[in-house]
Amino acid sequence: MKIALDVMGGDNAPYSIIDGGLDALKEDNEIYIFFVGPKETIEEHIASKNFSGISGRYEIIDAQDVITNDDKPVEAVRVKKESSLVKAVTLVKSGLADSVVTAGNTGAFMAAGFFVLGRIKGISRPALAPIFPAQGGRHTVVLDIGANMDATSENLVQYAKMGSIYAEAVFRIEKPKVGLLNIGVEEGKGNEVTKAAYELLKNETDINFIGNVEAREVPMGAADVIVCDGFVGNVMLKFMEGLASSIFSTLKEELTAGFFRKLGALTLKPAFNGFKKKMDYSEHGGAPLLGVKGACVKSHGSSDAKAIKNAILKQGKGMVKEGVLKKFNKGI
Amino acid sequence: MKIALDVMGGDNAPYSIIDGGLDALKEDNEIYIFFVGPKETIEEHIASKNFSGISGRYEIIDAQDVITNDDKPVEAVRVKKESSLVKAVTLVKSGLADSVVTAGNTGAFMAAGFFVLGRIKGISRPALAPIFPAQGGRHTVVLDIGANMDATSENLVQYAKMGSIYAEAVFRIEKPKVGLLNIGVEEGKGNEVTKAAYELLKNETDINFIGNVEAREVPMGAADVIVCDGFVGNVMLKFMEGLASSIFSTLKEELTAGFFRKLGALTLKPAFNGFKKKMDYSEHGGAPLLGVKGACVKSHGSSDAKAIKNAILKQGKGMVKEGVLKKFNKGI
Repeated sequence: MKIALDVMGGDNAPYSIIDGGLDALKEDNEIYIFFVGPKETIEEHIASKNFSGISGRYEIIDAQDVITNDDKPVEAVRVKKESSLVKAVTLVKSGLADSVVTAGNTGAFMAAGFFVLGRIKGISRPALAPIFPAQGGRHTVVLDIGANMDATSENLVQYAKMGSIYAEAVFRIEKPKVGLLNIGVEEGKGNEVTKAAYELLKNETDINFIGNVEAREVPMGAADVIVCDGFVGNVMLKFMEGLASSIFSTLKEELTAGFFRKLGALTLKPAFNGFKKKMDYSEHGGAPLLGVKGACVKSHGSSDAKAIKNAILKQGKGMVKEGVLKKFNKGI
Repeated sequence: MKIALDVMGGDNAPYSIIDGGLDALKEDNEIYIFFVGPKETIEEHIASKNFSGISGRYEIIDAQDVITNDDKPVEAVRVKKESSLVKAVTLVKSGLADSVVTAGNTGAFMAAGFFVLGRIKGISRPALAPIFPAQGGRHTVVLDIGANMDATSENLVQYAKMGSIYAEAVFRIEKPKVGLLNIGVEEGKGNEVTKAAYELLKNETDINFIGNVEAREVPMGAADVIVCDGFVGNVMLKFMEGLASSIFSTLKEELTAGFFRKLGALTLKPAFNGFKKKMDYSEHGGAPLLGVKGACVKSHGSSDAKAIKNAILKQGKGMVKEGVLKKFNKGI
């Protein structure tokens, strides 16, 4: 299983990204990694780590240019052919790599998927589909969370189909429950786009459409797949991060106000760590970009080594292993 | 201060609503309440409570019809003239009441505000503006959270103006920071509506526009006012409720797994209660419907007596006391 890793993407590039790749190599010997970025930097950093048991299982692909978050996506992909991001995606296009992982510019990654790899037949707009944690150890695929800012009702139907196939493959469940994110459960609720999408979705026979789902029910695991506009999905994802972090801070303040509370908090440390882990997005790896001809995984911009490792092992490897793309070609 | 209370709105109508009204009367002797709903039921319930010190401070307005959540808003307001909701709003229109509180059908309340009271000059669509808790005991007015499902960029600018005046009045701060909810902080990010709204907002001289704010920053208290489309705001509000409730459940599971943890959890009970209170929407009362000619407060559909009491004392009374409507007439 060969993974192309964009070493220059994300807030913690390049060292934490390289570390994530090395950790993945160490943990899973089925993995082969293309480290894509400035050759010398990568070579030096890997040498400094003095890892054993990884020789012959990686390769450095030199890329001297970088696409930053300030770059305009489409233009950057067209002009910066020597960037680590474009070169990493091109490795998938040429068949050298099975999948690509980046924590870099989301828009540019989208554009590279769109222009370098091309879209799957039947899909007009690709979608980013992360896995949200839900109560009781369950999970929910939410798409789109930011690939497409102004989705039409037809886009939402395509997301529903892709999400259903993807959830079936990664959760290993049959006929996953697909819900339309909306402001009320009743038919006829919502904005113009969701109202029209409901009408289309209820006539789709190849997905298990359960109707509208309110945002309140998403963390309860009300559906296996939640379909929404990229703007709304992005707001929900980022709000989850902000709220979880804010809740932890508030809780910490409360728990350390006074000696006895501090003592109590100490006995509960393992419980908190277990809880934190359940809420931690880096446990779930990255979000696949569904709808393009290749396994593309977008990791969070603030990814640390652990998040990159999980993006490689869970998503980058998982998508290929479960044959998600072949299932897309058959099912859509 | 006279408040019209729709006794038949919400999941816990009528008894918890009546109780909330009674609690408000007990707590604040500046308050006078019109209990609007089926006369006999209200009379009997109040008599059964045997409260002292409230006689002469309330009145029952008989209303035999009810607008339910299944009713179509505009039609219901037109046809059900004898409903508790329409009659309660009409008390404000006629000048008998200073403000109205309901936990009933949001759309119908909107429609009643729109048709019975009318819009404030310069406002094309009213907005629901609840207060979100933020870190460090701060608060943020978020609007709209569901009055208008397909907001235009012009609507968003009107929300910004109303939110600014409202925050200035209720938080007693000068030049509140107004942020546009978006998927990135940079100018040019977002969907078509937010991109256009940014262009309009940056030229507004009478508000303190701080630019785009990501959802992640909302719980951190990044702005005093957050402006967004009603669909997005509704998703954010409901997601907050669901996530908070889900986090409490997960935490509870973790904290009670084993004897020592249970013991530890016991010592921390006051801390958890303090935390829960900070996250509890019922502490903040209801959400005002801004933009109509009258002080209208929408309480959560699942409001209990405490939420109703707070909606009356904090929002229903507060809006009138701070002269929010007069300030709207001057400022917009």
